[in-house]
Amino acid sequence: MQVSSDRLMGMLADLGQRGALEGGGVCRLALSDTDKAGRDWLVATMRDLGMTVSIDAIGNIWGLRKGRRDGAPIMMGSHIDTVATGGLYDGALGVLSGLEVIAALNAAGAETDLPVAVGAFTNEEGARFAPDMMGSGVYCGALDRDEMLAVRATDGDGVVGEELDRIGYRGSDAPVIPAAYLELHIEQGPVLEQDGLQVGAVTGVQGIHWTEFTVTGQSNHAGTTPMALRRDAGQVAARIALAADAIAADYGPPQVATVGVFELTPGLVNVVPQQARLTVDLRNTDGEVLERATARLIAEAEAAAEAAGCSLTHRPLARFAPVVFDDTLVGKVEAAAQARQLSVKRMPSGAGHDAQMFAPLCPTAMIFIPSENGLSHNINEHSDEGDIMAGAQVLLDLVCDLAGATT
Amino acid sequence: MQVSSDRLMGMLADLGQRGALEGGGVCRLALSDTDKAGRDWLVATMRDLGMTVSIDAIGNIWGLRKGRRDGAPIMMGSHIDTVATGGLYDGALGVLSGLEVIAALNAAGAETDLPVAVGAFTNEEGARFAPDMMGSGVYCGALDRDEMLAVRATDGDGVVGEELDRIGYRGSDAPVIPAAYLELHIEQGPVLEQDGLQVGAVTGVQGIHWTEFTVTGQSNHAGTTPMALRRDAGQVAARIALAADAIAADYGPPQVATVGVFELTPGLVNVVPQQARLTVDLRNTDGEVLERATARLIAEAEAAAEAAGCSLTHRPLARFAPVVFDDTLVGKVEAAAQARQLSVKRMPSGAGHDAQMFAPLCPTAMIFIPSENGLSHNINEHSDEGDIMAGAQVLLDLVCDLAGATT
Repeated sequence: MQVSSDRLMGMLADLGQRGALEGGGVCRLALSDTDKAGRDWLVATMRDLGMTVSIDAIGNIWGLRKGRRDGAPIMMGSHIDTVATGGLYDGALGVLSGLEVIAALNAAGAETDLPVAVGAFTNEEGARFAPDMMGSGVYCGALDRDEMLAVRATDGDGVVGEELDRIGYRGSDAPVIPAAYLELHIEQGPVLEQDGLQVGAVTGVQGIHWTEFTVTGQSNHAGTTPMALRRDAGQVAARIALAADAIAADYGPPQVATVGVFELTPGLVNVVPQQARLTVDLRNTDGEVLERATARLIAEAEAAAEAAGCSLTHRPLARFAPVVFDDTLVGKVEAAAQARQLSVKRMPSGAGHDAQMFAPLCPTAMIFIPSENGLSHNINEHSDEGDIMAGAQVLLDLVCDLAGATT
Repeated sequence: MQVSSDRLMGMLADLGQRGALEGGGVCRLALSDTDKAGRDWLVATMRDLGMTVSIDAIGNIWGLRKGRRDGAPIMMGSHIDTVATGGLYDGALGVLSGLEVIAALNAAGAETDLPVAVGAFTNEEGARFAPDMMGSGVYCGALDRDEMLAVRATDGDGVVGEELDRIGYRGSDAPVIPAAYLELHIEQGPVLEQDGLQVGAVTGVQGIHWTEFTVTGQSNHAGTTPMALRRDAGQVAARIALAADAIAADYGPPQVATVGVFELTPGLVNVVPQQARLTVDLRNTDGEVLERATARLIAEAEAAAEAAGCSLTHRPLARFAPVVFDDTLVGKVEAAAQARQLSVKRMPSGAGHDAQMFAPLCPTAMIFIPSENGLSHNINEHSDEGDIMAGAQVLLDLVCDLAGATT
């Protein structure tokens, strides 16, 4: 059975029109109007493919194609929300390649022993609401539904539950735990491209710790306040940012550290900042090292604040331990790629993915394809059509194997 | 002749209602709706006092009280715009104490040989439009009028000329160069309070260099991009912020350095910042040291950007050399204070003031009164009524002397 590039590339282009940015790229922040437009298109497309569509209380959407017998389905999935300056493929590829698998089964008049499902999970990015992987976390029971429904946007504008009601995607269906979970995703990094490989068989996911720091000092006149009498929240925040960078340098790869948010109040040229807010994103495949990195960062932040006469508060915006995928299923990904004469290697994921929420509940694996220049979360994110179709074919072959397809 | 606390404290309270913030303080950003409300109140009050009101092309407002003969007036003045989190007295005291002097002359039925003027100058703070002291700079010919009319707000929202038209304060009167200029102002620093003094005879103003830096790197995924492959604009900006702090520490007092604006793009938790913008405010009474400090800052910023593979642009938002006031007039301030049994000392100003624009054109001096806890540009800015009235009395005595008042 074969996937069709006309169908899959067409679907990627159609969904890409929802939230398209001038100059390329997509902005479909979770539960925004453009996210609603993408969801509406997705639900209509699932129904066109003959699937039964379900929606749960956190807005996760999944479509089911019946099998010869009932029971736990083989589930494919990912997300359709994006960061503010996102690309066409991050998330969308995993959902739409799932629909392509369904379309290929339909076109071949194939039946499967087990049902086959495709899921799109709410707010995987965490760009508008923290934590990320919110929908799959609630679906798999790792996050509390009511707590997540009460989360306010990081920019203060909107609450998850209210936004779900506003866009009409607060459902009531009960999550279905699958027999296995497969997610096709762009690598979002430079490894496959550098190694000249077509497919990555993902062995697991880095642990992720997001911490928000708020430093409070005193605002004052920039000209008349001697340096010795200042309590400058911005200077403390700058020291925390450099401490995060130093931690990544000291620990070495795969440790990474990113300060993505850095805001001063009142934020005026000639006023000593009274308050500063910044976020630090730390990731490592080794959970113990990651715990040590976060503890060191917090200790250095507290020392910097104390030395400057400022007060400091910090809170975890996200804490995910490293995840290891099912070794047997990872082996099947490798084998399926090799059976199609595709070059493949085992590799960890540098990014968080919905798949990691399923790993504790059922055999789970991911398929990576190369990202041009390793770019993602960037309007210039791109993957070659050949790589996209190769990944989708491996996904189809795996589903046919796992679900027991016959024509 | 005596100033009246009922009149002056009443005027300060009235103007303070324009742009009053909940919890205290004032927000009258230049050319905003609240600035217009303050201007409308000021013009009406000048007319009630029998003054002739003039407005020039940059929106400076001045009222004139006739003297026995025409010619250059003795001018008092300051500004009524504030920072976003300003106090009741910064600027307003200099304008309203001038009106109090006029009211005292009127109440005494006094005549003066020279005309007496009170000026309120546009955008002294520079909080919304750079550079600061814009109105007095244009009034005194130090800044180009048409260039200033074309300045866009630092937050991008509004242009000086269009905002002047919008609030109805683009006038056509020609500036009048005074015979002398006097400005009463709160110290905005801790010195007088620490020394237990009532009056400062200001000898001059620190030089001020504002520089805006824009760092451009590459946005990328926070999890999948190895540290070695990053071009993180935010980390470069943090290094520039610490370099500014180190310069102030190395050079020692009176050198000060402030990073008041620090913004990241796109500003998302899990995206490496593609761009960072920050401002550095450097001040020193020694012009040569200030030039060296700015040169060192720019050199260190360029080195930090190059080391991180980022590009850097920088532009001066303001460049003011230190100013020395008229020694004879400063002596008259001292003498006037001593004649009222007020404790007084000579001191430089740590902040920029409209007076520095007049210093090259005519004998100029300033009178400082203490700021509680040295606080300014802060909603808790406060000065004691006794100190306010002492400063206003010194101002009245000086004007009577300089303008030749007789009852």
